[in-house]
Amino acid sequence: MSNSSSIDGHKLINNGWFTEISDKHFPGQGLSLKVEEVLHHSQSEFQDILVFRSSTFGNVLVLDGIIQCSERDEFAYQEMISHVPLFAHREPKRVLVIGGGDGGVIREVVKHACVKSVDLVEIDSTVIELSRRYLPHMSCALDNSKVKIHLRDGFQFLRDIGHAQDEEKYDVIITDSSDPDGPAEAFFQKEYFQLLNNALNETGILIAQASENVWLDIAYLSGLMKIARSVFQNTEYCYTTVPTYTSGQLGLIVCAKNEALDLKNPCRMPTPDEQTQLMYYNPEIHFASFILPTWAENLINQSSP
Amino acid sequence: MSNSSSIDGHKLINNGWFTEISDKHFPGQGLSLKVEEVLHHSQSEFQDILVFRSSTFGNVLVLDGIIQCSERDEFAYQEMISHVPLFAHREPKRVLVIGGGDGGVIREVVKHACVKSVDLVEIDSTVIELSRRYLPHMSCALDNSKVKIHLRDGFQFLRDIGHAQDEEKYDVIITDSSDPDGPAEAFFQKEYFQLLNNALNETGILIAQASENVWLDIAYLSGLMKIARSVFQNTEYCYTTVPTYTSGQLGLIVCAKNEALDLKNPCRMPTPDEQTQLMYYNPEIHFASFILPTWAENLINQSSP
Repeated sequence: MSNSSSIDGHKLINNGWFTEISDKHFPGQGLSLKVEEVLHHSQSEFQDILVFRSSTFGNVLVLDGIIQCSERDEFAYQEMISHVPLFAHREPKRVLVIGGGDGGVIREVVKHACVKSVDLVEIDSTVIELSRRYLPHMSCALDNSKVKIHLRDGFQFLRDIGHAQDEEKYDVIITDSSDPDGPAEAFFQKEYFQLLNNALNETGILIAQASENVWLDIAYLSGLMKIARSVFQNTEYCYTTVPTYTSGQLGLIVCAKNEALDLKNPCRMPTPDEQTQLMYYNPEIHFASFILPTWAENLINQSSP
Repeated sequence: MSNSSSIDGHKLINNGWFTEISDKHFPGQGLSLKVEEVLHHSQSEFQDILVFRSSTFGNVLVLDGIIQCSERDEFAYQEMISHVPLFAHREPKRVLVIGGGDGGVIREVVKHACVKSVDLVEIDSTVIELSRRYLPHMSCALDNSKVKIHLRDGFQFLRDIGHAQDEEKYDVIITDSSDPDGPAEAFFQKEYFQLLNNALNETGILIAQASENVWLDIAYLSGLMKIARSVFQNTEYCYTTVPTYTSGQLGLIVCAKNEALDLKNPCRMPTPDEQTQLMYYNPEIHFASFILPTWAENLINQSSP
């Protein structure tokens, strides 16, 4: 997976606007953000990295031409991918985050007092360095004493954990990968879900960003759900609304080892103090995020295996 | 309101892409759709009208530079603005649609067997003519025997109804206006909600597209909710997800004359036959569409009057 990208993020800026276009993943549509200043552009060992200050969305991180986060709306993604699995778990202590070197997910995970340790596995140290510099509200918890950073390939890390003792396995794993081109391609295949299954303990819950939503390639998404269900019988789909993601939303795939666990409802409630730290997540939207429009429900949850 | 627009929709197409930009309503962001062929462009008496065939969203109608609908995702809007108020009403018989000359809302309203008559009030006959020509799946019910088309200003129509007998007033009114520039500007002020109140009978329910969502100008949206609540004590906010609308979603303001009516849950269920005709709406998503992320819930529903 160690190869440079063919994309030059800087060339996606024209007349002062950055435009996100992908003939492969969302043909015929593109989101543009007005650029105030380019803060960084480089090719790391793994991908093309662009950071710019936008006129109305704060600082924006772009990997291989795809928007990863903006300061204005990042909480919608970080909170839902973190708190849905964490509040669906009775007492998560050990958490693994794969990808997510920007630190946004880590910031959310450490809000749970019951969490004792968080391993962050990020392949690209440049993402961490740039986030510390340009996304301070996201990277703010990277130095938290509960957090251990591993600069490694997520696949290799999972293979090692699969051979470990049960007490080294995880209660919650969060796959905060980039999209399935470039370094994250293998995160969307059956072998990955099997590795995740082996790295979770018996109460374990997994969540993965689907790099899709119901308005994009729903046939691909439906196939991805089938892959997940072939490993985890208890697999559900939910989503979060994020204006800088394509079509304004992103799908999340949630799986539990325990087939009887109700993933659609939190099994713990945020304390009043915890709730004041949450801008997007609440127990009601946890539940609502699993409810789909009819055509999507039929394709994602009702179609035969 | 009879004045031509200063916008030239044709000039928003560059290098084969149409781009929707508004410094006033959504500064710093823009959605682009790839254009296969421009089907129509004109200035009507009221507004700039552009119709093009896009590469991946079907035919697209643009008024004054703002996307009104695309064939690929229009059902998400039409179904939610129609079926939320219609299924929240025990037995809607008389329905008024203001704006919506494309016919999409009409198509949904006539799916309810209990609806006996639908008045459509559209100021711009060109929109109706173009929809019949280029959006046949939306305009298909305009000739339904229950439907009467009035080529009039919605405000004037409402003033007349306000003086009418109770049996001429409406069970459900749907405000399917364009955005608050151009001919629809007055649809977002207190006087309009008062006129709507006078045009509803005692069981009446109103829904209006807010031309906003929680990710855009939420302060303005919160103010609009206060205006609605100053007329209707029973006012709620819900939303639908539509990828070709700014930030991927659109807010809907729902009001009932009956202060005790639960707008958040349908009081009738779709019959199995009705449900097979619905691609987006179902009773679960009716409920879920009223559930907001915490920061939006606080600003829209919890802030003091």
